[in-house]
Amino acid sequence: MTTATEYLWFETKTERAFVRITDRVRDVVRKSGVREGLVLVSAMHITAAVYVNDDESGLLADISAWADRLAPPGDYAHHRTGESNGDAHLKNLLLGHQVILPVTGGDLDLGPWEQVFYAEFDGRRRKRVVVKVLGE
Amino acid sequence: MTTATEYLWFETKTERAFVRITDRVRDVVRKSGVREGLVLVSAMHITAAVYVNDDESGLLADISAWADRLAPPGDYAHHRTGESNGDAHLKNLLLGHQVILPVTGGDLDLGPWEQVFYAEFDGRRRKRVVVKVLGE
Amino acid sequence: MTTATEYLWFETKTERAFVRITDRVRDVVRKSGVREGLVLVSAMHITAAVYVNDDESGLLADISAWADRLAPPGDYAHHRTGESNGDAHLKNLLLGHQVILPVTGGDLDLGPWEQVFYAEFDGRRRKRVVVKVLGE
Repeated sequence: MTTATEYLWFETKTERAFVRITDRVRDVVRKSGVREGLVLVSAMHITAAVYVNDDESGLLADISAWADRLAPPGDYAHHRTGESNGDAHLKNLLLGHQVILPVTGGDLDLGPWEQVFYAEFDGRRRKRVVVKVLGE
Repeated sequence: MTTATEYLWFETKTERAFVRITDRVRDVVRKSGVREGLVLVSAMHITAAVYVNDDESGLLADISAWADRLAPPGDYAHHRTGESNGDAHLKNLLLGHQVILPVTGGDLDLGPWEQVFYAEFDGRRRKRVVVKVLGE
Repeated sequence: MTTATEYLWFETKTERAFVRITDRVRDVVRKSGVREGLVLVSAMHITAAVYVNDDESGLLADISAWADRLAPPGDYAHHRTGESNGDAHLKNLLLGHQVILPVTGGDLDLGPWEQVFYAEFDGRRRKRVVVKVLGE
């Protein structure tokens, strides 16, 4: 069995950002030498998301607007701590903070439109995503 | 370590469909010979979902109506590409596109009411789910 | 390769409860002896959730209220079976029923605010969460 672990760092210039990370994850997989296995891609902060969907600019706008509709900015009990990012915590839960991708034949085993995204909802600070490969 | 990979194909006759796939996943696990491990079940298309819940007809209707309420059909920026399935992309994100099931003693290790579903929101075309077993 | 499987039991005194289980999951990982791998934490019942987010009382209240807003108690087709927990099934889908945590250097590899929660939406009965470690 082989495992490999890398951390992708992000510090987005805007509070909200959608960053396609498929190629960075693929690089970790290839460097690991794993031919058959699984790779976990998981945000280590609870105000960002990691999800898989299409890389199409209209759809990215739709996802952003949808997240605002279902988890709107506003007053949250969490803000009594001095924070103002309650909606970002809920968006993390709505979109999910992690995906597992299959590794087959030494590469990511993705469908034709599947792209991996890091979705930042509380940016302008350094944050990490852990990428962990497990296989042989 | 043993790995096994199979692809389940779907081409639903209706645009929307809920297909119970627990037994098909179990068959892949048994054929793999893995006694202890994990199995990933992941939609390879971004307008379908894979989730675990109860197989009860009323509940399936509730889930379908709920997905329409939170991710309604309508006008989306994504439709400027000529597509009309923006809501299906959001439903994929709402319900999730994958689950990991534990394999214990050579079988799926599920609770009493847990069933695995493939939820199609943009059907009438050929689509795949990848099933990847990893264990020993 | 090493695997280890344990079941965490819950019987909450209230219908709804948020239980932090990070330490219980960490104990399973340490006992397993796995240094590098993955651990699956998955609710075996379809009216509870397992998710990762911050352990802050205001935020827990926000998450609970948000789940009620997006998946409200009410009349569901599922209730024709005699059940009354339709909203709990939808909350399971909204928050997700499982997470995978990376194991690095023999411990959970979590970000600074990441805590694992069991969220009960239909309590006062015995329920389980499966914890399965896989690695070496």
